[in-house]
Order: sequence, then structure tokens, then C-alpha cells
Amino acid sequence: MDTVTIDGRTYRFDRAAREDVPTLVALLRDDVLGAGCEKSQVAPYDAAFALVDADPAHHLLAMRREDGQVVGTLQATVLPGLSRGGATRLLIEAVRVDRSERGSGLGSAMFEWAHAWGRARGATLAQLTTDTSRTDAQRFYERLGYEATHTGMKRPI
Amino acid sequence: MDTVTIDGRTYRFDRAAREDVPTLVALLRDDVLGAGCEKSQVAPYDAAFALVDADPAHHLLAMRREDGQVVGTLQATVLPGLSRGGATRLLIEAVRVDRSERGSGLGSAMFEWAHAWGRARGATLAQLTTDTSRTDAQRFYERLGYEATHTGMKRPI
Repeated sequence: MDTVTIDGRTYRFDRAAREDVPTLVALLRDDVLGAGCEKSQVAPYDAAFALVDADPAHHLLAMRREDGQVVGTLQATVLPGLSRGGATRLLIEAVRVDRSERGSGLGSAMFEWAHAWGRARGATLAQLTTDTSRTDAQRFYERLGYEATHTGMKRPI
Repeated sequence: MDTVTIDGRTYRFDRAAREDVPTLVALLRDDVLGAGCEKSQVAPYDAAFALVDADPAHHLLAMRREDGQVVGTLQATVLPGLSRGGATRLLIEAVRVDRSERGSGLGSAMFEWAHAWGRARGATLAQLTTDTSRTDAQRFYERLGYEATHTGMKRPI
């Protein structure tokens, strides 16, 4: 699956390149929670991109519209482990769809792509966490078949 | 930090070896939820162990008592990513402490070790999910400074 066509518009499932980083950061920042978490300097993002890009366990997805603009992103990671019968998990982080594209089905297409990417690498279970205040996001994930079985906990270290 | 002494007993923070896998699986299985998730065959666990052990992004901890018995485990993973200013996360999975050792402070010691392991690899945020039915576990994580800010969602793929 290299492209998807929605309402006559074609989008390409690209692996993000370094020159996409500013656009990806703008997508992360254009969000009620992300606005407070993201920085104005570029250097930490370039460094983080280099770490993600260097490890084949990760795939930073850049959904590219026909005009070249990146309008969606997520980070997919395969996570091996002993539990659940030695199951490999697909971890999804940092999901964003450009405001102009929401409700179009692009987010669902990105998840279908991510599930296929994970399955091709042996994953049998997908997992993600979403801020409890994101009730719209939770409904979206439930429509995709996700169940809210777990409590997600974080702390600075 | 190679060892910790609690109530006069010393425990060693070992990286799990392949010969520890059966004991680690027994710890995973000896649990109200784990009992239904774990298999009787050994082969899938050996294969999963090989994947975890081969990648320096993961550390499968085996807490070894002075008598050689492994009585605690968790899997620590460093996860780079663009969000939160390009923050590297420490992901904690598959936490178990042997029934005979619960309430002793061993679990807290394992988390202190994991946080230090993550910080040494650049992580600034720790995250985990716990089944919502595990209210005791959630209280334990809250005592360690974790906040239940997120909803953890999963689906088979």
C-alpha cells in the first residue's frame, strides 16, 4: 500500500525525511495539548528524527498530498516482549491529521497502513495511549476497533 | 546500581539471560490476568527473548535473590520520538514481582533502577499502561510519582 485515494484525492504513505521535520512539528504543535508541549527550536527535533530514522523498529509516517504537503503523521514502532505468549506489539505514538483533512477518512487510512506495517513485522497487538481529555480521539480509536482496557500513566524522570 | 539490599537481603539487577526465560514466564503466568494470556509452549518465549535481547533499546530486568532465584522482572525500552520537544521516553512493560516478595520494596527498587537506566539513555519521561482492573498496581505507580493522565487502548491486528 503506497497510496490511498479518498474523494478523488490521492495521498502517499511516505517514510518521513529530514526535510519534513518542520512540517511534522507544526502538525504536533497545532493541537490543544501539543501547543504547550512543543518547543520553538528545531535542533532537538532534528536529533530526535535522526534516532527514529536510524532504527528499523520505528517508522515515522508522513502522509503526503498530491501538492506535496504533509497532512498527517504517526510514529509506528514494533515492540517485542515476553508477555502474552511472546507477542510483538505495534505501538502507535504522535498521531496528527491536519485540520483541513479531518473527518475525511485519512486518519483511518493511516491506521490501516500502520496495522499492515506492524503485521508484516510480526506484531499481533496494537496499542496506544490518548490523553483522557481527548474524548473525540477515543471515539475515533473505538471506531477502529480499539478498546479502552488500560490506564496510561506517565511521570517525568 | 548493581545490587539493592532490603531488610538485610541482597538482590542483583541482572540483565535476563536465556536460561531465565522459564522463570520469567512463570512470573508472568502467576497473575490473575496473566494466567489467561500465557502459553504452555516455550518456543515463542525463546523467540521473543532473542528479539528483546538483540536490541540495545530494550533491557529485560531479572531481579536475582542471593539464592539465585529470579523474583522480579520488567522490560524497559527507550523510545525516541518527535513529540514533547523531541523527548525520548522510557517505556515499562511486563512488570511482575514474585508473591513471596510483594510489599517488601523490591518493586520500588526495580522502578528506581529502570528510571536510572532510562535517564542514562536520554529518556526524560517514563510511561506505562496497566489494566484498569489492577487498582492495587495503579496505587503503587501513583506512590512512585506516576499520574493516570491517559487512556490505554489496544486491539488485535
